[in-house]
Amino acid sequence: MSARAMLNFGLTDLRIVNPRDGWPNDKAIATASGADDVMNKVQVFESVKDAIADLHSVYATTSRARDIVKDVHTPRSAAQKIRQQVKSQQSVGVIFGAERTGVENEDITLADALITYPTNPDFSSLNLAQAVLVMAYEIFGDTQSNEPTLRSGASPLATKDELDNFLSRLMASLEDKGFFKTEEMKPTMVQNIENLFVRTTPTQQELNTLHGVIASLLRKD
Amino acid sequence: MSARAMLNFGLTDLRIVNPRDGWPNDKAIATASGADDVMNKVQVFESVKDAIADLHSVYATTSRARDIVKDVHTPRSAAQKIRQQVKSQQSVGVIFGAERTGVENEDITLADALITYPTNPDFSSLNLAQAVLVMAYEIFGDTQSNEPTLRSGASPLATKDELDNFLSRLMASLEDKGFFKTEEMKPTMVQNIENLFVRTTPTQQELNTLHGVIASLLRKD
Repeated sequence: MSARAMLNFGLTDLRIVNPRDGWPNDKAIATASGADDVMNKVQVFESVKDAIADLHSVYATTSRARDIVKDVHTPRSAAQKIRQQVKSQQSVGVIFGAERTGVENEDITLADALITYPTNPDFSSLNLAQAVLVMAYEIFGDTQSNEPTLRSGASPLATKDELDNFLSRLMASLEDKGFFKTEEMKPTMVQNIENLFVRTTPTQQELNTLHGVIASLLRKD
Repeated sequence: MSARAMLNFGLTDLRIVNPRDGWPNDKAIATASGADDVMNKVQVFESVKDAIADLHSVYATTSRARDIVKDVHTPRSAAQKIRQQVKSQQSVGVIFGAERTGVENEDITLADALITYPTNPDFSSLNLAQAVLVMAYEIFGDTQSNEPTLRSGASPLATKDELDNFLSRLMASLEDKGFFKTEEMKPTMVQNIENLFVRTTPTQQELNTLHGVIASLLRKD
């Protein structure tokens, strides 16, 4: 599951230290189905120290505060730093502990910094693959968060002029049908209806549809 | 697994539409063990429309672009918006699809906006609980990312003066032992060594340890 979590976010270098059930492990390989880019190059080591020997920088994930002096990151702040480090040609590793015991104290010492996940203080039960998933997700990055939201659907947006034409037609039709009961209320009602349509930022195609809707509603049959 | 993923990040309102294996489901309840705050109040509905009836705003997760005009968020940009909406007293929902089929087109239409996960284009295989996990993680928020990194370990940092005392002692000892081979090279060597210790921003306790190290190394026996 960790291999699959990694590959979802483009990470392929999985190193395993002292796997409980040995290696290769048929059950693990079956569960990782599809994540061949990770599984085909898994490396197995006898100690964390051996596993990180060729790396420049290492983070250790830990669920509780440790009595050791190290910087503590969240997954996001660690990921920001990791991306910078990778850009400057550093090889960076993240150490995850065994399912129940977590990272051993002696391996915590090997890490340059720690990563602690912000979770519900009353229920914190991320399993190994989930912890890997969140970290891989953060490392992959969410480049869109500070950019304007994208829009699905290929049709170009209507111009303000096209929208205004539609709104004029709608208002004229409403006027014609006696929608505006008093002249006094009319400006506010017009403004509210216009605002509603403006807020939808319709495409040209949607505007055509709306024209069709008005035409149909006005049809006498 | 989705219930547990939710509770890890403080979400407790799980609504299930037409569960394949009926409800209650012993296997699901066993897998969710510990997530009682979620499982005890699961609501089951016959349609997505019924499930979202009391909500003010709804997002639908989708793995592929849809031919429908809606804003498309990443989990992070959606989460930012959701947190704002919740602050202004809105009830907000996120629709996740069935494991293989995803959210049906007719249910996509019900959503105010879509959420698409940024993943490896060559391997995108998030399962339902993983998709829930990432979204719940984002909604919970990573408030620390733009703040200075915290530090574990309770001991107070050494003052600059304490650090300077240590460095002076170290340099004097090195001088005494003939470490600096030429006067010409000395300033650069001193600067490099000092910089190394400054960069560690040691605690008072660590500085005491370092004093002990120097004292030991100097001991004649």
